[in-house]
Amino acid sequence: MADKKSKKKNPAAHQAARPAALPPSPFVIENVRPAVDGGRYPVKREAGETLAVTATVFKEGHDAVVVLLKYREKYGDKTWRETEMTCVNPGLDVWQGKFLLEKNTRYEYTVEAYTDFYRSWLKDTLKKFDAGQDVASELLEGRHFLETEQKRLPKSDYLERVLAGLKSARNQGDQLKIFSEDRLLEFTKTCSERTDASVLEPPLEVIADRVQARFAAWYEMFPRSQGKTAGKSGTFKDAEARLKDIQAMGFDVLYLPPIHPIGVSHRKGPNNSLKAGPDDPGSPWAIGNAHGGHFAVEPGLGTLADFEKFEKACRAHGIEIALDFAINCSPDHPYVKEHEEWFFKRPDGSIKYAENPPKKYEDIYPLNFYAADGHWRPLWEEMKKILDFWIGKGVRIFRVDNPHTKPVFFWKWLIEDIQREHPDVLFLAEAFTRPPMMKMLAKAGFSQSYTYFTWRQFKQELTDYHTELTQSEMKDYFRGNLFANTPDILPLILQEGGRPAFKSRFVLAATLSSVYGIYSGFELCENKALPGKEEYADSEKYEFKARDWDKPGNIKDLIAKVNRIRRENPALQHYKNLRFYRTDNDNVLFYGKATDDKKNVVLVAVNLDPYRAQETTLHIPIAEFGIKPDETYQLQNLLAGDRLLCKGDKIIVRLDPKDEPAHIYQLNRWMKREQDFDYFGM
Amino acid sequence: MADKKSKKKNPAAHQAARPAALPPSPFVIENVRPAVDGGRYPVKREAGETLAVTATVFKEGHDAVVVLLKYREKYGDKTWRETEMTCVNPGLDVWQGKFLLEKNTRYEYTVEAYTDFYRSWLKDTLKKFDAGQDVASELLEGRHFLETEQKRLPKSDYLERVLAGLKSARNQGDQLKIFSEDRLLEFTKTCSERTDASVLEPPLEVIADRVQARFAAWYEMFPRSQGKTAGKSGTFKDAEARLKDIQAMGFDVLYLPPIHPIGVSHRKGPNNSLKAGPDDPGSPWAIGNAHGGHFAVEPGLGTLADFEKFEKACRAHGIEIALDFAINCSPDHPYVKEHEEWFFKRPDGSIKYAENPPKKYEDIYPLNFYAADGHWRPLWEEMKKILDFWIGKGVRIFRVDNPHTKPVFFWKWLIEDIQREHPDVLFLAEAFTRPPMMKMLAKAGFSQSYTYFTWRQFKQELTDYHTELTQSEMKDYFRGNLFANTPDILPLILQEGGRPAFKSRFVLAATLSSVYGIYSGFELCENKALPGKEEYADSEKYEFKARDWDKPGNIKDLIAKVNRIRRENPALQHYKNLRFYRTDNDNVLFYGKATDDKKNVVLVAVNLDPYRAQETTLHIPIAEFGIKPDETYQLQNLLAGDRLLCKGDKIIVRLDPKDEPAHIYQLNRWMKREQDFDYFGM
Repeated sequence: MADKKSKKKNPAAHQAARPAALPPSPFVIENVRPAVDGGRYPVKREAGETLAVTATVFKEGHDAVVVLLKYREKYGDKTWRETEMTCVNPGLDVWQGKFLLEKNTRYEYTVEAYTDFYRSWLKDTLKKFDAGQDVASELLEGRHFLETEQKRLPKSDYLERVLAGLKSARNQGDQLKIFSEDRLLEFTKTCSERTDASVLEPPLEVIADRVQARFAAWYEMFPRSQGKTAGKSGTFKDAEARLKDIQAMGFDVLYLPPIHPIGVSHRKGPNNSLKAGPDDPGSPWAIGNAHGGHFAVEPGLGTLADFEKFEKACRAHGIEIALDFAINCSPDHPYVKEHEEWFFKRPDGSIKYAENPPKKYEDIYPLNFYAADGHWRPLWEEMKKILDFWIGKGVRIFRVDNPHTKPVFFWKWLIEDIQREHPDVLFLAEAFTRPPMMKMLAKAGFSQSYTYFTWRQFKQELTDYHTELTQSEMKDYFRGNLFANTPDILPLILQEGGRPAFKSRFVLAATLSSVYGIYSGFELCENKALPGKEEYADSEKYEFKARDWDKPGNIKDLIAKVNRIRRENPALQHYKNLRFYRTDNDNVLFYGKATDDKKNVVLVAVNLDPYRAQETTLHIPIAEFGIKPDETYQLQNLLAGDRLLCKGDKIIVRLDPKDEPAHIYQLNRWMKREQDFDYFGM
Repeated sequence: MADKKSKKKNPAAHQAARPAALPPSPFVIENVRPAVDGGRYPVKREAGETLAVTATVFKEGHDAVVVLLKYREKYGDKTWRETEMTCVNPGLDVWQGKFLLEKNTRYEYTVEAYTDFYRSWLKDTLKKFDAGQDVASELLEGRHFLETEQKRLPKSDYLERVLAGLKSARNQGDQLKIFSEDRLLEFTKTCSERTDASVLEPPLEVIADRVQARFAAWYEMFPRSQGKTAGKSGTFKDAEARLKDIQAMGFDVLYLPPIHPIGVSHRKGPNNSLKAGPDDPGSPWAIGNAHGGHFAVEPGLGTLADFEKFEKACRAHGIEIALDFAINCSPDHPYVKEHEEWFFKRPDGSIKYAENPPKKYEDIYPLNFYAADGHWRPLWEEMKKILDFWIGKGVRIFRVDNPHTKPVFFWKWLIEDIQREHPDVLFLAEAFTRPPMMKMLAKAGFSQSYTYFTWRQFKQELTDYHTELTQSEMKDYFRGNLFANTPDILPLILQEGGRPAFKSRFVLAATLSSVYGIYSGFELCENKALPGKEEYADSEKYEFKARDWDKPGNIKDLIAKVNRIRRENPALQHYKNLRFYRTDNDNVLFYGKATDDKKNVVLVAVNLDPYRAQETTLHIPIAEFGIKPDETYQLQNLLAGDRLLCKGDKIIVRLDPKDEPAHIYQLNRWMKREQDFDYFGM
């Protein structure tokens, strides 16, 4: 056989790492979970969690095998660490192992398997011996195995003693006792040469984000609308005065629309009108003027130093800033002059404004992420410089405007490149588009994403959508940040349902997901829309506003209460633990969340009908929590403060929108909790 | 930026084929289906079929895109052929294309996507023009685009005429008419430079087997038991005399247990006893003696020339031989002397027999597929030589004995290496082991596999198992060959249920799957078992048998009838089209198969209780076949020959095991069929 041909036909070719003279490893390693698209994209978890990994691993025959979970930091110490997996389903060859995601960083993990030749030999030999067969020849094999190891490995006193013991053993039974010592089994396994090992390649990846990626309450607010006078720009100083209020409501992320200088050319007037008056501030998403672009601060808000002061004040209130990253340039942006090669041009050399034909957006010049002659690359690098700049000013969260209109592989590169140095930086994707793109942006690295929550208002659609978000394969890479409203979306249910709808939608957002948000004004139940649209009338996107933040009819108490409940109940701080339960009324949604150990269980019933009181039976999933049918347990309504003693799996509730459209129950066993769980062995 | 660093960070690094100066392609291509384990293993289909491929494909923005399905033969002409895919679900970005699997070979396929810049430009420009906007600048862009193409491409008279036409057009509207010509759109799309194309790599693979991989009726028989005298070896000549009978029953594959010389040392006697008498033939699976090994024919059966003659006689009867490939060597096999390096050895140098401690199989020496010092490779090659030898004698089907005790990657290499030259060779895996290994052998290349069918005897388990086989991802790589019995398995239902059970199990095997088999004696309802076992008493594995093949009580008529029904009804020749339907009796299984165009529909009702008549309502899925609730249709019972006129979705049947335990209905529309399907637009 010619060498060339033999190379082509090498049966071991699929296991590239093995020397060609060795036969292929016998091991099949498949179905490694969790995995996103078979390992093509990273799984998302949070630092401090333990990652449980399962895999199907097997080879032909009945040998004893060792299966290892291997893991390492992606950027740090590249040495693999190993932990043994155990077979949790022998009939289906399923193995499981786990490792702690100690740090906020990216980890790689994979699975290795090899034959434990010593244990295999011992197992068979013991069976023969126990059946009364002569095993003299087998014992010679065993001793030969250990002698070979003694020669191969650094000299081991232990092995020397074992070999001496074997020599002086009186009979086969005594020899087998020595051969069966636990320490010897451990020694031979650990020191194994792993000659037939197979490692799954390439490794899989998990992003261990900080916990805030999963658990946070967001508040969106225009700093320029925090002043006392309508029509005049509020400042960072004004915004600082509001932090106490925001803190009291229980929010921990403060999301600011773009804070940069706003374009003058084709500036938009009130209600998105084409002509702005001389005092109209324009949309903050049309970025850049003579004062600067993405690196600058709108002078009306203050200076860069003012921003830094504000940022520190936020931290002092336990609040983090999320900055808007909107890749839009006004015609007055410095890039237009400095880097005209980054823009789209007409045949006459002029720069094109944004369009969605026949609509024109003349206040915005889109950037060309595929700019010819290699110009795309400095553009991509520049975008990273913008982020690095604000990271330098203390910002660790970016809300990204319309990422689905830029290349997904730009985001994949950008996010990983940023997180390599700053693993604590989080990205929220504002992509309202078709499902494949929304999912892809999450796979590409976005820590969180906006969702369709605002448009899911009835029982079945809420159930289906949030089951998909939290129970399908999406749970491994997509964290839905449920916004109840945004400056662009005032959903019909809020327009029509008024205060009761604001309350029920708030409870839904804050308890269906561990991460959620509202856009300011929500707490005041503002719901004046442009006729026939989901848009706010007189939107502050185009105006300086001033509000009475304590206006009667506000729901700040409810907000504060729910955020406190979230902090006090770890079950609500998790994302994937959402389960829907049965009610007998299509207007009442009933669901719950529990910690893994079931020590904290929260059940939520929400009246989705803002007009009428609804009465229904809630079917409490007592078996799920180990409660017996004849056992008494307590439901404590954390909103109203009342307590119910219950027995059995049904309770009847009445939810009146005029009063409180939702109940949030903490489910407690009736006995003292510690005893209780001990008693039931939980 | 230093070059080295820039290389490491190249955002386009995931698309290796693109020049580094170009930005990454914007396209996401995912969820390509069919695919086995994300493309790691080949999909299986049959030559003559059309392979429909779907994929999720998208990029940012709203450009017009072209998505191509690319395919080529794996070993033949490596040029990709292309066919355009169409968007079948714009909301989920799902594209579909198909190509004909013309030949019996392996194909590769993948998906390519690129932006149709011309069509994108035209679409936007038309929108602007239709909205009354001036598009002079846009038209310049369009003309520039075509002029550039004219320079880039081989000179095109057509394009020249187009450009001339544009020059002389009187106004923007006339120009746009020219720009919108279908031929121009086709021209620009087809000639596209595809500068932003992305191709999914590596390509996926599909094995286009010959149709017999999917549709065949197998008959297993020991040639040595085809003589007239018990205790004396039948010959190939005797076997030839039975071909007419086998043909009359309607079988098309004749599977022969090993036909090689049988070992003498430790030869097994009747009923697997340890000592064989001088006239005992031994088990044909203990291969090899002084007459030769896997390349030789057992002298009792005849010569190699006799085999070749027999093989030709089979073909003349429309029957193909399936040969047993059993990698077992008796202690007398030539390999033992010629290649002792291929065997396992004791410390004293003697060769080890097979064991499953504490059980010993002293009549068999296992081969060591991992033989040290590189000896494994000539062994693997030798195994291939055995197959090549019998392929040379006309054999095209191998039934592989116990493949799960040999390395799966040996099979992967062997099967592809054989099929590269002989794509018509089929392999049936006799692996009765845990599901992951059985599935893996199919993924590794086995054309068919034995199943758990013999042990699935009641309604729910039959339904669950065959739904998994035919509806889960297994359908793309695993073809279950349903054997109703084997020389090793005489299931309890046959032991207990007698003739009615043989009938119902036969109908189940022959209609649940398009490929099935029986082991001879089944047609005579032989069911004498070893006490408390699933094994035959006085098995012909260890004895020369002679039977009366026309013994009263035989079910050969039913067998012939069912095999004829299978040939006459294309629905029964397909594998993945099995659907289970509702009955109101747990002893009656009701299911059906239809061709894609629903022109042939077969429904089967089987009484699973061999003791008592069962009556039940069958729920006919009329909606599935486009039959209206008030429409009359016909059910023709192909077994009994009677016809039923039906209306609505329920009929009541009585299945009496004393008579016929199964009904096989052909469902016919009442109107003339051609008209009928035309009328309903089917």
